[in-house]
Amino acid sequence: MTAFVLGHKIPDSDSVCSALSLAYLKNAIGEQAIAVRQGELNPETAFILQRFGVESPLLKTSFAGENVYIVDHSDRAQSPDDLSEATVLGIVDHHKLGDITTSAPLECWIRPVGCTNTIIKEMYDYYQVDIPKPIAGIMMSAILSDTVIFKSPTCTDIDIKAVEALAKIAGIDDYKAYGVEMFKVKSKVEGTPIRELVLRDFKDFEMNGKMVGIGQLETVDLSVFDNIKAALQADIAELKVEGGRHSVCLLLTDIMKEGSELLVVGDDLSLIEKAFDTSVVAGKSWLEGVLSRKKQVVPPLEKAFA
Amino acid sequence: MTAFVLGHKIPDSDSVCSALSLAYLKNAIGEQAIAVRQGELNPETAFILQRFGVESPLLKTSFAGENVYIVDHSDRAQSPDDLSEATVLGIVDHHKLGDITTSAPLECWIRPVGCTNTIIKEMYDYYQVDIPKPIAGIMMSAILSDTVIFKSPTCTDIDIKAVEALAKIAGIDDYKAYGVEMFKVKSKVEGTPIRELVLRDFKDFEMNGKMVGIGQLETVDLSVFDNIKAALQADIAELKVEGGRHSVCLLLTDIMKEGSELLVVGDDLSLIEKAFDTSVVAGKSWLEGVLSRKKQVVPPLEKAFA
Repeated sequence: MTAFVLGHKIPDSDSVCSALSLAYLKNAIGEQAIAVRQGELNPETAFILQRFGVESPLLKTSFAGENVYIVDHSDRAQSPDDLSEATVLGIVDHHKLGDITTSAPLECWIRPVGCTNTIIKEMYDYYQVDIPKPIAGIMMSAILSDTVIFKSPTCTDIDIKAVEALAKIAGIDDYKAYGVEMFKVKSKVEGTPIRELVLRDFKDFEMNGKMVGIGQLETVDLSVFDNIKAALQADIAELKVEGGRHSVCLLLTDIMKEGSELLVVGDDLSLIEKAFDTSVVAGKSWLEGVLSRKKQVVPPLEKAFA
Repeated sequence: MTAFVLGHKIPDSDSVCSALSLAYLKNAIGEQAIAVRQGELNPETAFILQRFGVESPLLKTSFAGENVYIVDHSDRAQSPDDLSEATVLGIVDHHKLGDITTSAPLECWIRPVGCTNTIIKEMYDYYQVDIPKPIAGIMMSAILSDTVIFKSPTCTDIDIKAVEALAKIAGIDDYKAYGVEMFKVKSKVEGTPIRELVLRDFKDFEMNGKMVGIGQLETVDLSVFDNIKAALQADIAELKVEGGRHSVCLLLTDIMKEGSELLVVGDDLSLIEKAFDTSVVAGKSWLEGVLSRKKQVVPPLEKAFA
């Protein structure tokens, strides 16, 4: 039976590229697998796939009765709504361990590294499968994206070595220049509806029974948000109400200045202030050095909500 | 900070031996780690440790504020009561994915193989660390125990290859003969208090909000239970009440006949009958071919309770 390989809701580049790279690997070792995505491609991911001539995975959101591999998450809130009716054969992820459970043994490749594709690179090595040039290109791109070109505190030596090896296969001589080009695409906000921006890289987390939505927009220059910041704040307030969420955070991350402006609405902002040891003024706060939602935002919030 | 490596409550040979083998590996790659156990050694495990001259891990049941590696389980019901106050750095396991969650990224080596020590063998290979002779001996023993000397449906080619390689290092020429010797120790019931037998290899599972306890006793000859079966049945009935459990199952497994006699008490035995497509008569049922709790008992029960 063919298995579907799927990343999280509101897919980012790692979720899409790791579904593709893992599906290729599974087929290469004799397991039938098809990469899918749970939502629309963001501009960065579209740029990556086009750059390396790889077709987008198909959109698929229902998996009852299917076999699936999960990539880039292990939280139910980010997985398909009917996941409990599917059979999870495996998980490849680099986040905290979420609340997905299974009723039969499975394979999990979970590592505290910067990107799912770094782990999949290890899996290719383990199974001694050659990585085709286009797959190497999208894997390299996802690692550069997730590690913010190695600037994120989530980045490890293993990520850097993986990018170096993949860049060689993909024929990209200056991968850092390519990374900046990619982040410029990611930074573009003009002409994009506000809600689309807010949801571009947005994840829900259940924290001690409360739903907390956390979005992140990474740019090479924070000033692109100057004219739309009020609109973003109004929109996350709406999103909070619509989803019955306790809080919604939106991180406007400046990868050059290496910090994030936090926009936040919530039922109890003192929890947010406690988490980041900061004051929230007019729904905003500058978080110096904060680049990683996974490592610098989710853990302190979970602690504050506990 | 030193990390503790711990297996499940009521430890079996795999839980104890994998804590020891993983702790050795972690120290070898520069991470300080100490193997511990959550309960008393069973006779089989005591036999294994003595046979290869390895000291028992220390008993430790509280881990608040500590760093831990979890082996051989990922279910909260089997983990220390204060696990939520510890930091889980990693999980090495071969069961279904349980309900342990973390708030920070971790490493998980979870594979659908017959034994945790098979995965740890793979980790030694990955890190290119030599396995000392006594550690190889206890790892081999755990795999032979968990796979019922390769008879269990959970056994894979990877388990067999691991045993072959470990036996060579441990200097055991006829590992199957050694395995039978080990199972004879496991089979001994004379002189053992009934409650101790019931709890010798006992795990609790939360199934759709109901607590289900499942014990297993493996023997080379089922007739050893003839005189104590009624006492075992009376004791699981007590255990059900004491723990507020919905059901308690005790599998009396004959590894030669390759099947198990199920002793069961429960609030709704029709769920049990549905799970195994069988009739329970006088609290008993023969389950032909059933050797593995993990693969042949827990999944159908979870389906029936869903």
